[in-house]
This record gives sequence, C-alpha cells and structure tokens, in this order.
Amino acid sequence: MSKGVRKRDFPLGNVRRYLEPGPIVLVSSASKGKTNIMTMGWHTMLEFSPSLVGCMISSGNHSHGMIRESRECVINLPTTALTDAVVGIGNSSGADIDKFAQFGLTAEKASKVGAPLIRDCHANFECRIVDDALIARYNFFVFEVVKAHVAPSPKHPQTLHYTGDGVFMVSGKVISRRSKFRPENL
Amino acid sequence: MSKGVRKRDFPLGNVRRYLEPGPIVLVSSASKGKTNIMTMGWHTMLEFSPSLVGCMISSGNHSHGMIRESRECVINLPTTALTDAVVGIGNSSGADIDKFAQFGLTAEKASKVGAPLIRDCHANFECRIVDDALIARYNFFVFEVVKAHVAPSPKHPQTLHYTGDGVFMVSGKVISRRSKFRPENL
Repeated sequence: MSKGVRKRDFPLGNVRRYLEPGPIVLVSSASKGKTNIMTMGWHTMLEFSPSLVGCMISSGNHSHGMIRESRECVINLPTTALTDAVVGIGNSSGADIDKFAQFGLTAEKASKVGAPLIRDCHANFECRIVDDALIARYNFFVFEVVKAHVAPSPKHPQTLHYTGDGVFMVSGKVISRRSKFRPENL
Repeated sequence: MSKGVRKRDFPLGNVRRYLEPGPIVLVSSASKGKTNIMTMGWHTMLEFSPSLVGCMISSGNHSHGMIRESRECVINLPTTALTDAVVGIGNSSGADIDKFAQFGLTAEKASKVGAPLIRDCHANFECRIVDDALIARYNFFVFEVVKAHVAPSPKHPQTLHYTGDGVFMVSGKVISRRSKFRPENL
C-alpha cells in the first residue's frame, strides 16, 4: 500500500467486505490532544445497515480509556507491508510513546470523527460508539461505521490474521462460489 | 480433513488459535429431537479464560430459535475440503431439509452439550450461552466454550474467510514474528 494511493468513499453497507474475513486491524484514537494506535484482532460485524462492528478492547490497553472518553475511533486495515508496525504497535504502549512517530505512520484528518486516519493503511473506517452496555462486562464496544475510505487497488489486499503465539496467517487465494448462492444471500 | 483423523482435547484457553483468524464456521444445534447446521462468519473471541466467543446469529436463521431454546451449540471449523457444503448450508434452511443428510456430514455425540459435533470438520468447540443480554438488540450471543476437540494435523488447516458476494479468501502462508513479541503478549 503506497502512501500515494488515493482512497475513495466506500459504501457503509459493504464494510463486511474487509472486516468479515477476520484481519488484524489498527485502531486509532484521539483524546485530550493526544493520539494513539492499538492492534486489534477481536472484532466482528454485527449489522449491515447501520454498519455496526463489535470490538473487544481490553481495559489494559491505553486506547481503551481514550476511546471511552472520546466515544470515537478509526478502524484501519493494514496489509503485510505494515507487518512490523502491527507487531511493534501491539507490543508497546501509547502511555510511553507516540506510535505514529515511532512506527513512521502518517496521521490524516478524518471526516466525521476526531480520531486520525492512518494514511498508510488500505482502508479506514471512522467509528462512533453506539452502545456501551457490554463494555463493563466484556470490554465489548459496539461501534457504528459513519464513514469509510478504501484504496481502489489492489482488489484483494494481503491482510494479516493473528493466531496467537506471535504467528500470523496471511490471506491467500480468492475463490468464488457466486453461482451457487441464492440471489437474496449475495 | 479425512473422516478417519481422530481429534484430541484442546486447551480451552487456546481456542483463539482457530477463531481469531476469522474463518467461516459451521454452527450445529439440536432442539426438540431435530438437528441443524448454519454457516456463520460474524463471530469474535471475547475472553481467553473462561473461553468466551461472541456470535451474531440472525433471527432469520432457523438455528437462532433452536440455539435460544437449547442454550447450546457447537462451533465447527470446516476446511476448503468442505467448501461446497459450507455454501450449500448457507443457502438452505433447516426448516426444509436435514442438513447432515443433505450435505453428507456425520453427526457425532458431543461431550458436554446436546448439539452434535460435525465429525468432518477440523475442530469442534462445544458451547453454552452464558449471556443473552444482547440477543434481543443485536442477535448477539455470548457463548462459553466448554469443550474443544481439534485434529492434530494439519497444523495450519486451509480455512475459508468470507468477503460477501459469494467470494471467499482462503488462508495463505504462515509467518512468525515471535521474536519481536514481549513474552507477556505471547
């Protein structure tokens, strides 16, 4: 993902295209004049429209408090070009360092939220908290994606999928079974 | 995944190994003397121990009512050997057909729940509902995995990851960055 590729607005009802396959994402946030980034693997789509995403963000993460406070974040989709940054971000704390500076990432102004986009990522999903009922019990945030930006190419970016123990699965080949689907299920 | 491979008990605290990468799974259930299977892509880990998994199971699915009624299910991990079954199961309803029979799958008795394991899958995670607070609002079930069975090989099964529109991403190569992790993060 080159920093020069311009992203396009992406339909909010299609966000599952990028999140349902289960990639590691980078969550950026801003609060009280500071920004932060965390690595996140525990997330799921919850609804097409409104576009809802549920995320487990442990209270041990510095980002947890920043997101609760600002009630916003950006979910950014990194590719394998950012593997080292993904690992570094997941193994350091925003309480100690400025992660944008430390990992050479470019913050870009979002359209609808105060949290910055990570320009170097393939896609950026601007999010607002819409339900905090399960934060206390499970650190589970329900976000609505209110704006989506996606690079037009490559069509199938190489994403990272975490298995634990320092090991990632990289997205592989793409197969279509479209002809075997009921039209209403597509 | 041959039907002859015997699975082993798998530590409940490591279930993320198979679910965090975001595979399509098959959810089996039993209620009132009938069984059913559905295809599911919207799930996330919520906790290591107890082993909690959150799943969005639309109320339009026949399985939704069966799982609410029995408060149990099994999350089964298919590989690409079952691609056609995965697609067929997702495009038919248990209200009309017996999915085990229709798709040539073998039901096996679970240890701790009434729902059957799908023997043909690489892994089986027996689950009980532990929290139904978000079912009404988001069809979001919080399950505890109470027993896990995993085939010892292959170590990295070829899993299916759904992108919508009838298209799947297949799991690709595996890379380790273990040496760059803090020990407490492994």
